[in-house]
Amino acid sequence: MRIETVEAFYLAMPEIRDIGDGSQDMALIRVRSDDGTTGWGECEASPLPTIAALVTPPSHSACHGVLDSVLGARIDQPADIAALAGVVAERGLDLLQTAHAWSGVEIALWDLLGRASGEPVWALLGHRASHARLPYASQLFGDTPEETLAKARQVAAEGYRAAKFGWGPFGRGSVAADEAHLEAARAGLGGDVALLVDAGTVWGEDVDAAAARLPALEAVGTVWLEEPFVSGALAAYAGLADRCRTVRLAAGEGAHNAQVATHLIDYGRIGYVQVDTGRIGGIGPAAAVARHGAARGVTYVNHTFTSQLALAASLVPYADVPDGALCEYPVEASPLATGLTAGRLRPGADGLIRLPDQPGLGLELDLEAVRGYLQEVEIVVNGRCLYRTPELVP
Amino acid sequence: MRIETVEAFYLAMPEIRDIGDGSQDMALIRVRSDDGTTGWGECEASPLPTIAALVTPPSHSACHGVLDSVLGARIDQPADIAALAGVVAERGLDLLQTAHAWSGVEIALWDLLGRASGEPVWALLGHRASHARLPYASQLFGDTPEETLAKARQVAAEGYRAAKFGWGPFGRGSVAADEAHLEAARAGLGGDVALLVDAGTVWGEDVDAAAARLPALEAVGTVWLEEPFVSGALAAYAGLADRCRTVRLAAGEGAHNAQVATHLIDYGRIGYVQVDTGRIGGIGPAAAVARHGAARGVTYVNHTFTSQLALAASLVPYADVPDGALCEYPVEASPLATGLTAGRLRPGADGLIRLPDQPGLGLELDLEAVRGYLQEVEIVVNGRCLYRTPELVP
Repeated sequence: MRIETVEAFYLAMPEIRDIGDGSQDMALIRVRSDDGTTGWGECEASPLPTIAALVTPPSHSACHGVLDSVLGARIDQPADIAALAGVVAERGLDLLQTAHAWSGVEIALWDLLGRASGEPVWALLGHRASHARLPYASQLFGDTPEETLAKARQVAAEGYRAAKFGWGPFGRGSVAADEAHLEAARAGLGGDVALLVDAGTVWGEDVDAAAARLPALEAVGTVWLEEPFVSGALAAYAGLADRCRTVRLAAGEGAHNAQVATHLIDYGRIGYVQVDTGRIGGIGPAAAVARHGAARGVTYVNHTFTSQLALAASLVPYADVPDGALCEYPVEASPLATGLTAGRLRPGADGLIRLPDQPGLGLELDLEAVRGYLQEVEIVVNGRCLYRTPELVP
Repeated sequence: MRIETVEAFYLAMPEIRDIGDGSQDMALIRVRSDDGTTGWGECEASPLPTIAALVTPPSHSACHGVLDSVLGARIDQPADIAALAGVVAERGLDLLQTAHAWSGVEIALWDLLGRASGEPVWALLGHRASHARLPYASQLFGDTPEETLAKARQVAAEGYRAAKFGWGPFGRGSVAADEAHLEAARAGLGGDVALLVDAGTVWGEDVDAAAARLPALEAVGTVWLEEPFVSGALAAYAGLADRCRTVRLAAGEGAHNAQVATHLIDYGRIGYVQVDTGRIGGIGPAAAVARHGAARGVTYVNHTFTSQLALAASLVPYADVPDGALCEYPVEASPLATGLTAGRLRPGADGLIRLPDQPGLGLELDLEAVRGYLQEVEIVVNGRCLYRTPELVP
C-alpha cells in the first residue's frame, strides 16, 4: 500500500503546569494508506516544532521535512519501514527535530501495517510471542523521609512488586538526608518489593557526588540507579559503574537514535537501557537497542509517560523477553493521555501487563473523548498554508 | 543589560535545489537589549522548525521554547551567556531542536556583548590574540579522474595551499577508481598543497570498506579523511583510526552539543574535530571542544557553509591557536549568504584569513541586500499569533 496522508494533531491540557509531567500535551500522528487503512502513533515531543519538522520546505539535500520522504512511499512489509527510516534519516540529517517527528510516524506505520495484515506489531517485528511485563509504580520522593515512607507503604498496599522513587530532594542535600529517604522507601515497601531510584541527572557529571550515595543505595537493595548524570556523560557513567557493587546504572530515555543508546551501553557501562520509542525513531531502532543490549547482558526497559498508545508502542521492542521483566507503566497521566484510547492495558490478576493480540498496536482511539484538547494551528509561509489542524473526528 | 527582543528571520533563495549546498536558506537571529544594543547570529538549521522551537508553548518543565528562557535574561559578562545556556538546555531538554535554535541566539548574544563592551568576541572569550587561519578550498570530486585533475589544477593556480575534495563518485565504486581520483587530485595540486578528503559518510559503519582506501589515501599524503562513517559510529571510527598510519580522521560537523564532539575524540579517536558553531549551541560549547581536543592532541577546525557572519562565529572558538591552522572558507556560497554582510573576511596578501578587531563579530549586515530573500511566516495557535516575520530593515 502507498502512504496517502500523514496528519499531525497537537493536543494539550487547558493549562500546562511547569512540572515534570510529560503527559500534558501530545503530538499525535494519523497515517492513511491508499487502501483505506489507518495507523496511529505518538511522538514524545514538543508538538509545534514537530509539526514544523514534518511540513517545512527543504533547505538542501540533507535537510528535508519528514513528509517530503514519507508521502507516496510504499509500505508492504516491515523491511519497507526500515528502508524508509534510512531515507528519512539521510534526507533529514541536518534537521535536528527529525528523529522526534519521525518517531510517531514510524509507530503509526507499524500500526498501519499490522492492521492491514491482521497481525499484532510484536508479531510483525518477528517476536514469536508477547510476554507479560511487571509494571513498576513510578513516583517522586516525598519532601521528608516520613512522606517517602507513607508513599512507599501506599504503593506496597496497592500490590505493586516494584516501585521507583525519584527527583524531589534526592541528591540535593546531604548523603545522610538521601540515606534517610532510601531507608524510608525500603521500610515502607517491605523486603519483597523491588526498589528503583531515579536521580534525574542531579549530579551533572560529578562521579564522586553520585558514588557517595552508593553505600546507602546498596544497603537497601536498590536494583537500579537511574540517570545520575546527563545522558551524554559517558565517562561519568563508566566511572560510577566501576564503583558499583550490586546496584546497576540505568539511562537512555533521551536517546534520539539507536547509537546514543548503544553508546550508554558500550562506553557508559549501564546495566539497564531505557528507551522511549516516541523519541528514538520508533519501534525499529528501539528493537535494535534491545538486541544490542541483550547480547551484552544489558536489560532493556521501556520509557513512556503519556498515553496507552505510547505505552503499547514502548512495550513492543522487547516483547520477546521472558515474562516478568520490568516495565514503566504510567499511573498518573493527564485526562488527555488517559482519554485517548478506548481500551487500556491494565494489570491482569497476576499483576502483569500484556500487549493486546489484536492487529497493529491493538488499541482503538476514542477521538470524541479528546477532541476538546485539540489545538488549532496554522502555519503559513509566503501566503501558502503549509499546515492547518486537520479534522480529528472524521 | 537585559534581553528585550529576539527576532528570527527565515531567508531563502527563490529556488531551493536538492543539492548539498547549505547556503540556500538561513535562520538569522537579531537580539536587542534594553540599552539599545543589537547583536546578530545565525543558526545552521532548518528555519521553520527553528522558529517553532523559539516560540512554541511549553509542554512540561523540561520542554520549554527557547525564548521562554532567554527573554528578560541579564547579560553583562561572558559567564552570563554560559549560565543562560545551562538554563536553556535544562528547560529545553526534551525539545530536540533546542540546540540548533539556541546556537544562533548564543552567537548573537556574544555579538551583542562585544558591541556593548567594545571588545571583539575572541577577546571576550579570553583569547589574548586572534591568529590567522589558512583557508582550504572545498569542492566536489570530479565525475572522472580527468575532471578531478582539472579542478585540482585550478585550485592550485588560485594560490590555495590546502584543498578538500569530497563526495561525488568517491567511495561508491572500486578501490582502483578512488585511487585514480586521489592520484589525479595530487597531480593537479602539485606536491606542496595539503590534500584533504571528505567521504561524506559513504561507508556507513563499514570499517573494511574505508580501510581498503587507506593505502591510496596515504600514498598521496592525504592530511585528513573526513566523515568516513555516520557521526555516531564511534566504534567504526576507532577501528579505522587503528589502521591509519599517516592519515588522520576528521569528523564532528553534526555535533549538536559539546559531548557529541568530545565522544568522537575520546571514543572515535579522530585527529581533527570539526565543529559548526551554528549547530553545537554556539561559541561557548565550541570553545570547550577546542580545549578538550587540544589537551588530547586533536586539532580543531571550524565547519561553516553559509554567510560571513557564520564564518566569523566559527573562527572565534580556536582563534588562540597559532597562525596557519586550517579553516574552512566557503567559496561558492549563494547570493543570499554572500550578500548578508557588508564586510568580508578575505584572504590577506599572505593568503591567510583574519578575524576583525572590531567589537562583537566585527561584521556589519547589509539588510537591504537580502530583504528580497525574506520569507513571510505566520504561526497561529488557537487564534493567537505566536510568530509573524518581523521587519528586517528598521
